[in-house]
Amino acid sequence: MAESVDAPRASHPAGIDDDPAYREAVVDLLAVIAYGEISAFERLADDASLAPTLADKLDLATVASIELGKVAPLHARLRELGVDPFEAMAPFRRPIDEFHRHTAPADWYEGLVKAYVGDGLADDFYREIAAHLDPVTRDLVLSSTEEGSHAGFVVDRVRAGIAADHVLGGRLALWGRRLMGEALIQAQRIAADRDALSAMLAGGSERPGLDLAEIGRMFTRLTERHLQRMGELGLEA
Amino acid sequence: MAESVDAPRASHPAGIDDDPAYREAVVDLLAVIAYGEISAFERLADDASLAPTLADKLDLATVASIELGKVAPLHARLRELGVDPFEAMAPFRRPIDEFHRHTAPADWYEGLVKAYVGDGLADDFYREIAAHLDPVTRDLVLSSTEEGSHAGFVVDRVRAGIAADHVLGGRLALWGRRLMGEALIQAQRIAADRDALSAMLAGGSERPGLDLAEIGRMFTRLTERHLQRMGELGLEA
Repeated sequence: MAESVDAPRASHPAGIDDDPAYREAVVDLLAVIAYGEISAFERLADDASLAPTLADKLDLATVASIELGKVAPLHARLRELGVDPFEAMAPFRRPIDEFHRHTAPADWYEGLVKAYVGDGLADDFYREIAAHLDPVTRDLVLSSTEEGSHAGFVVDRVRAGIAADHVLGGRLALWGRRLMGEALIQAQRIAADRDALSAMLAGGSERPGLDLAEIGRMFTRLTERHLQRMGELGLEA
Repeated sequence: MAESVDAPRASHPAGIDDDPAYREAVVDLLAVIAYGEISAFERLADDASLAPTLADKLDLATVASIELGKVAPLHARLRELGVDPFEAMAPFRRPIDEFHRHTAPADWYEGLVKAYVGDGLADDFYREIAAHLDPVTRDLVLSSTEEGSHAGFVVDRVRAGIAADHVLGGRLALWGRRLMGEALIQAQRIAADRDALSAMLAGGSERPGLDLAEIGRMFTRLTERHLQRMGELGLEA
């Protein structure tokens, strides 16, 4: 390897066609994001039924639709790579469904916090990974993780709820911690099951990856962003 | 009135600003369509959970999102007219919710037929009304009733289902008739409650409307289109 250890982390140098392991990792990544968006749609559409007003319902339904709209470009790219998107998504259904099963919101506010904190966490994670990808995949991943205009809506609603009911703030703070914990459990499971995906993160003899220290720093950044989001909602983390 | 009875039916001649009754009718019309789309989203997103495969689920969820996407332009126009969209929609929540309560699909196929036949019927009705509107409102109504690309998807699925299970065909034929009946009951209720809307259809001293014979012909056309849709699904009507 010509690169020095101190060289800035570059995007994946090899094309997707030259490296079957990398290609497999990209397929996994696009598939897990796509299934995540489909299940985000389902969950948000479902949570919208808890909305206290029709305006709230419409706002959350709109967020759900925006998530769903991100699926088509991911599926199109998977098809370009010669892969059936539904086969590619299959391995990720269980961990993501499990995440949602373990984090079913008990009320409207828990649903809002989950939409904000859970999706934010996933998006941050994919953006971290994006830095290590070839440009085509990177752009696709980044555009799939763009926050919609819904952020402000959730922040306003949650802050108003806490202001009106102090007990709610304590409950939602715990809830945010639980979301983080459950997300880590399922991310762990995916990393354990999907060799190509974790190998891509870890790197290999021919391409740069993350060493343990870097993985540690990445988790520190993810945690900081999580705490920041909790703070934006007015919640202790 | 200078117009002869045989003159072709023109779009509403007066601007929306010149005629408070017409303006009220337009507000009602945009509001009922908008709430119809929101509740279509809710129902379709809910029915998507009945989907036998993930591909089917994604298809129906996409249809739901397309319906929701039609709400924003309708709301924008209501706001332009100085009206709060949520207040304008309020009178239509009960009849539309009642329609859905009385036509909750028992399974995936009933949900598909409802998406196709129910939405088709509503769209046909709004298109009939559109002929009597000022150009701005007409274009907005017509773009809200455009069929998405989902038609083919529903037809394929229902036809395959009937081919595999003959009893299903009989059940879905009855279901289609019930959808038509419930739609008429709720349309009747809306017409009875919303004077401006029915007055717009009936016309008045200063503008052309539909006489009884024309209303009869309109219902004949709506029924014919309904029978045609049932036929496309492979169902006896």
